[in-house]
Amino acid sequence: MTRIFSGIQPSGELHIGNYLGAVKNWVQLQTQHPGAIFCIVDYHALTGIYEPQSLRKRTYDMAVSLLAAGIDPAHATLYVQSAVPEHTELAWIFNTITPVGELERQTQYKDKASRQESVLAGILNYPVLQAADILLYKADAVPVGEDQVQHLELSREIARKWNTRFSPEGAPYFPEPKALLTPTRRIMGLDGQAKMSKSMGNTVGLLEDSDSVWAKLRPAVTDPARVRKTDPGTPEVCNIYHLHKAFSPPPVVEEVAVKCSTAGWGCIECKKVLFEHMETELVPIRRRASELRDAPERVTEILATGAERCREIAGQTMREVKEAMGMLG
Amino acid sequence: MTRIFSGIQPSGELHIGNYLGAVKNWVQLQTQHPGAIFCIVDYHALTGIYEPQSLRKRTYDMAVSLLAAGIDPAHATLYVQSAVPEHTELAWIFNTITPVGELERQTQYKDKASRQESVLAGILNYPVLQAADILLYKADAVPVGEDQVQHLELSREIARKWNTRFSPEGAPYFPEPKALLTPTRRIMGLDGQAKMSKSMGNTVGLLEDSDSVWAKLRPAVTDPARVRKTDPGTPEVCNIYHLHKAFSPPPVVEEVAVKCSTAGWGCIECKKVLFEHMETELVPIRRRASELRDAPERVTEILATGAERCREIAGQTMREVKEAMGMLG
Repeated sequence: MTRIFSGIQPSGELHIGNYLGAVKNWVQLQTQHPGAIFCIVDYHALTGIYEPQSLRKRTYDMAVSLLAAGIDPAHATLYVQSAVPEHTELAWIFNTITPVGELERQTQYKDKASRQESVLAGILNYPVLQAADILLYKADAVPVGEDQVQHLELSREIARKWNTRFSPEGAPYFPEPKALLTPTRRIMGLDGQAKMSKSMGNTVGLLEDSDSVWAKLRPAVTDPARVRKTDPGTPEVCNIYHLHKAFSPPPVVEEVAVKCSTAGWGCIECKKVLFEHMETELVPIRRRASELRDAPERVTEILATGAERCREIAGQTMREVKEAMGMLG
Repeated sequence: MTRIFSGIQPSGELHIGNYLGAVKNWVQLQTQHPGAIFCIVDYHALTGIYEPQSLRKRTYDMAVSLLAAGIDPAHATLYVQSAVPEHTELAWIFNTITPVGELERQTQYKDKASRQESVLAGILNYPVLQAADILLYKADAVPVGEDQVQHLELSREIARKWNTRFSPEGAPYFPEPKALLTPTRRIMGLDGQAKMSKSMGNTVGLLEDSDSVWAKLRPAVTDPARVRKTDPGTPEVCNIYHLHKAFSPPPVVEEVAVKCSTAGWGCIECKKVLFEHMETELVPIRRRASELRDAPERVTEILATGAERCREIAGQTMREVKEAMGMLG
């Protein structure tokens, strides 16, 4: 059995960028791989600048979004990282077998270090905690984006190193987790300028109401060559076309490509069709979110049950790890 | 009430160097400051090269040594660090407010980094875990040697930083722990060349039997000026004189100084007097150790009770810390 693990930052309500880029894939994986574990990584989130009150709300909103998007406690486990302190314990242990130099060589760290005068130790140690997140549950496969492939390679290296030093001969204790590259390409923001992200203010919220979605879609940037309705466009350079590929059925996507490149319709008509197909997918998600907001105790209970299950697995792993390493505690 | 916390590496049986340099002081402090907490720091020990089997034994032997030396569960709490995973949880949190640069500036780290090609992340993060050790119990005072003063200053800095960001206005949550510098000067090894330490092989074990202690004491280096019994010596340069100051009553120490500097006796006679006074102090310690070895379940029980008490305090601290930082878990 393949055990899937993946984490997501408690960034509040999902937007369609992280829904299409990660979570929609999780929803599919959870039925293919029973026992998948999805984690809202609030220990990781502490490495950014934040307000405590907003973290609390963002964590809760992320849980509602994930459940609304289709993460189903009948198939998968959803929980908040800080409810399972074993993550930090295994991270400490991995710290003691990981050279500082390997952490300094991580691209994401170098990138942050080059842009900041002072970098936090938590940012240097970030990928060590990620390794602990994954290996605590002996996960074999981790759905990730391209940007996390290097960190996952470090997790594999840490698993190998620990196994070499502490596993019983011929029986590696930790698996070397593989990347499951998320198939959907990254989603651009409605400005067509940058990846969709909250910090860019170019998102469409997964739970936004219909009017608000249309109000954002209507003025969204399309192929700049289509100044007039009669100018033919190039679908591949148009952000709306890529959203069609994510939301509309294949025959519609084909039709969109033809109509765009032959100036068969205007961008507003194209957007209206997209909007309809988005509504088909998003209306049930919004409905589930609204039901969950009406029953917050249900969300709390799902997270508590998830944390309990994870602490059981994590507790067992830590007992075995400590035994192998000669710790009495 | 002042809360005392101190930690010691699980280095196996104590020798008279760490007994006189640290533990004897703890035994005195435990009655002056009820509720003192003493920790065998096995998470820290993982940053060194070690064998799992030996760590297990060294941890147990250290517990026996400390109890034999006089750490009394009726006054103080003794436990093994890895039985309280909250240490690593608070360390992760402190990681997220501590710049890498501050850790790189620690003398002990610079020292290790300059002597090794590759330094472990656990060594860089070592003083962050120390800060967590202390602040988890909101300790105000930490008996330390000179070499730990810089690390303790970092703990104070971390407490200040956390308080500034997360404490309710006007009420700092964490105290800024003060150093209680251990009064006894450092004890030299019997070779008179270096500080007494296991790695130098120049120690006298706290639990060694009488014959073995005398066999080591007899050939021990004294003032090199005393070639013949009739050569006067300089007590202050003689290691045996310093051991007299640690073990013999003040009038004896005075007499030793006079007899040495006037060539009133030979070094062997001087050592015989020292040996007697060492025996007075060490015989009851050896007896307690032997009693504990005959009742290993007693040691296990003391450590378990200690860990339980510490987990209660640590659990409360972590609930409050997480609440203040907006963590849902």
